[in-house]
Amino acid sequence: MIKAIMNGCNGKMGQVISAICKEDPQIEIVAGVDLYDGIKNDYPVFPNISVCDVKADVIIDFSNAKAVDDLLVYSVDKKIPVVLCTTGLSEEQMEQVKAASGQVAVLKSANMSLGINLLMQLLAQAATILAPAGFDMEIVEKHHNQKLDAPSGTALALADSMNDALGHVYEYKYDRSSERKKRDPHEIGISAVRGGSIVGEHEVIFAGLDEVIEFKHTAYSRSVFGKGAVEAAKFLAGKEAGFYDMQDAIRATMEQAD
Amino acid sequence: MIKAIMNGCNGKMGQVISAICKEDPQIEIVAGVDLYDGIKNDYPVFPNISVCDVKADVIIDFSNAKAVDDLLVYSVDKKIPVVLCTTGLSEEQMEQVKAASGQVAVLKSANMSLGINLLMQLLAQAATILAPAGFDMEIVEKHHNQKLDAPSGTALALADSMNDALGHVYEYKYDRSSERKKRDPHEIGISAVRGGSIVGEHEVIFAGLDEVIEFKHTAYSRSVFGKGAVEAAKFLAGKEAGFYDMQDAIRATMEQAD
Amino acid sequence: MIKAIMNGCNGKMGQVISAICKEDPQIEIVAGVDLYDGIKNDYPVFPNISVCDVKADVIIDFSNAKAVDDLLVYSVDKKIPVVLCTTGLSEEQMEQVKAASGQVAVLKSANMSLGINLLMQLLAQAATILAPAGFDMEIVEKHHNQKLDAPSGTALALADSMNDALGHVYEYKYDRSSERKKRDPHEIGISAVRGGSIVGEHEVIFAGLDEVIEFKHTAYSRSVFGKGAVEAAKFLAGKEAGFYDMQDAIRATMEQAD
Amino acid sequence: MIKAIMNGCNGKMGQVISAICKEDPQIEIVAGVDLYDGIKNDYPVFPNISVCDVKADVIIDFSNAKAVDDLLVYSVDKKIPVVLCTTGLSEEQMEQVKAASGQVAVLKSANMSLGINLLMQLLAQAATILAPAGFDMEIVEKHHNQKLDAPSGTALALADSMNDALGHVYEYKYDRSSERKKRDPHEIGISAVRGGSIVGEHEVIFAGLDEVIEFKHTAYSRSVFGKGAVEAAKFLAGKEAGFYDMQDAIRATMEQAD
Repeated sequence: MIKAIMNGCNGKMGQVISAICKEDPQIEIVAGVDLYDGIKNDYPVFPNISVCDVKADVIIDFSNAKAVDDLLVYSVDKKIPVVLCTTGLSEEQMEQVKAASGQVAVLKSANMSLGINLLMQLLAQAATILAPAGFDMEIVEKHHNQKLDAPSGTALALADSMNDALGHVYEYKYDRSSERKKRDPHEIGISAVRGGSIVGEHEVIFAGLDEVIEFKHTAYSRSVFGKGAVEAAKFLAGKEAGFYDMQDAIRATMEQAD
Repeated sequence: MIKAIMNGCNGKMGQVISAICKEDPQIEIVAGVDLYDGIKNDYPVFPNISVCDVKADVIIDFSNAKAVDDLLVYSVDKKIPVVLCTTGLSEEQMEQVKAASGQVAVLKSANMSLGINLLMQLLAQAATILAPAGFDMEIVEKHHNQKLDAPSGTALALADSMNDALGHVYEYKYDRSSERKKRDPHEIGISAVRGGSIVGEHEVIFAGLDEVIEFKHTAYSRSVFGKGAVEAAKFLAGKEAGFYDMQDAIRATMEQAD
Repeated sequence: MIKAIMNGCNGKMGQVISAICKEDPQIEIVAGVDLYDGIKNDYPVFPNISVCDVKADVIIDFSNAKAVDDLLVYSVDKKIPVVLCTTGLSEEQMEQVKAASGQVAVLKSANMSLGINLLMQLLAQAATILAPAGFDMEIVEKHHNQKLDAPSGTALALADSMNDALGHVYEYKYDRSSERKKRDPHEIGISAVRGGSIVGEHEVIFAGLDEVIEFKHTAYSRSVFGKGAVEAAKFLAGKEAGFYDMQDAIRATMEQAD
Repeated sequence: MIKAIMNGCNGKMGQVISAICKEDPQIEIVAGVDLYDGIKNDYPVFPNISVCDVKADVIIDFSNAKAVDDLLVYSVDKKIPVVLCTTGLSEEQMEQVKAASGQVAVLKSANMSLGINLLMQLLAQAATILAPAGFDMEIVEKHHNQKLDAPSGTALALADSMNDALGHVYEYKYDRSSERKKRDPHEIGISAVRGGSIVGEHEVIFAGLDEVIEFKHTAYSRSVFGKGAVEAAKFLAGKEAGFYDMQDAIRATMEQAD
């Protein structure tokens, strides 16, 4: 059983992760850290990680940028790997993260969802096979009507995973209504649908001669990021120093299975 | 059994319709018209409709603009209703069509597919219910990579069917990548995906609070237009003079069933 | 502005509905009823509806079977229409509901989701057109892995809406693996997919010659039932005595728009 | 430019492949073989492969069981690799195929579609990651109403590709309507939808906690098998003796790209 410290245990994501770990026989939260103490947990909660004296194999962090400094000191000092999910770190902090990864295992990723990260790996492979065989690549993403940007960062990351695998010869196309011409084979179309309260849906289409292959990811709530963080923690426990991301976690599981 | 004349019987669509009618116990092709005589049919074929002396209840026309003049004369003269599927008529011809419809039943529609025409009626109803309840409307259409225009005429017709039902207060939005803002409730987003040899796919999305309703039409070949023409012919046989479209054919079937 | 009493205001659905009404300029909750008083609301809360002295146009009920007896007495006495969403009523209570509907407007429906109820109406129309034109009807529903029954009650209700419209000549087919034969045209296939935490997805497929039309409803959370209840309340306010369901609410909106 | 002999060039698939090669700058058909000589081709056609004296790098075969004996003799004799797409071979013939593969490269696969074969590889990987993370696996396949068997052989092959990767601990579940119980985590549900003229659609669903990943393959015509055969021929030209399948062709392309 892997023992985990939950940094930011009383925040929304901390509670989501606590619930996930309760159902998982392979990992257990043995301590939490949070300034706010209004929630009853099954484990002891410390106001700051520096005073946490419970032994653990890995730290899962969903706290805030301020709490990250102490977290890194503690992680390096105790040699406990850390899954770092807090976003909005300053450049100085990112440098500290890199420095820490020289002494302890640190995992950080743009998107913690297991599904999206897996998809990125599979899309790279699919593109390598299908693009030379004449398949056209297109992405349709759907999000709620309050989202400001379009297309989504995740849609662009998915396109990049294909474009990287193919030597960066594709341009991204966001609008086809303004011109009257056939599709350029060296483009990846990216369409953004907005409506209602859709959490996030990404569909990648490979369209060939009389054959279409689609890869689709649907998120129903933010808890998918919690699930991904727990899988990352299981992967990271016991790893040597270094900077890891979700792709490594997935690749390792793949190799293990070979 | 309805007796039909197939005008343009040896063209691609004429043959498709002949095959459909062979399987349909309610309608039978009793004569064909075509200049080209290289195909064996189960019915007599005349080089021009003016020399066709077989009695019929309806004419299905998938010929060419030149052949339409004789067709209209014959239709009015013999008082046989005509389903007019030939496109690219001149303005003068369209006026002749209108004039003919004063003396005989004529059916003409932008899109002969039964499914698309049904969808237009259902979308008008759905929009009337869902838009006031806060649902956002979006359309995604997919076509092959040789198509020049975007979005498709059918996608626009589908959007119009909703916009018409709602008092024309919606604007169509083709691109969201160029600005950073929340979705305007008074827009209908229309996205165009292009790839491979996709014949035609139209998806209309109503996205509300934690609820999404989708209407999707997929055409696998052009024969869907043939099927629609045959249904139109069954509807039109015996009808009094007037100008009809596929919507009338569908509405009639609905009322009959009530 | 329609004034509503929320019966069961501090339950999960009561709170969902309170949040929905706060955003809706056409309806306002002026009083709540709940034995539990641990939640702060923007309106006064009474422990029992019998002591509620706030004037209202409609009552929305998401309470429990026990609370329904007092609710019906109050509703009849004050002549306030009631949207009755509590399930699990006894047969005696159902008779009381029917009796009450002789004196005041009562709305009760198997499924309060606006989308599903709209779909039932549209499917009846679509089936009337497409089945005679040779389209086959199939349903695929998807739910979470904890659901005990298959197929879902809603899938059956959707099938019924088509079967009712077509004169009840269709049989429902749940399994095709046990025999080796062509599809019988007089069957509606219903497939049940189970997995993860899927809230509820229903897809109705009309498959014809080279043409497929799909209708799909996806629920992302239980709040879709709250949304439906609010729309029902807007419809019911001011209505004369009678027994209504969600289909009436939708039909009325349609006619209003014609 | 790879030079190919098309065995069975005047059959339906032979003509499909001829058309595909005409558009492909990497491969050219230099000779055809067919008893039927009623079709004009851009290359010389021989009545039997034994009399074909044109030099080639690979043979593509879509003929019939009878023609396969001569094909194998020729292939071994001339040391030309062969992509063997003819089905319905006798057991004796299958042994001859195996024997031939000791002397020349032979590629044979259950399903020649590039997309389905690629999907099988990606599904094995996805299952390895997602199943241990608690995702449930389900398959929905859709075919035309004339298909006799259910589920499709391809659906079973897709399920097998996941089950193989996971150590064969899953049972396939075809019907859930006959019992009232929660889903067993060690099952893969396979649903078969039948309707209209659907050529073939396979959807594999991984459903987890608030996250669903779908892989979908749609065939629009039988020409997808032709496309796969051409890709296989490009792979096989120049290969040493051995028995190959489409999975090898795809794997090679992947490694080449690494």
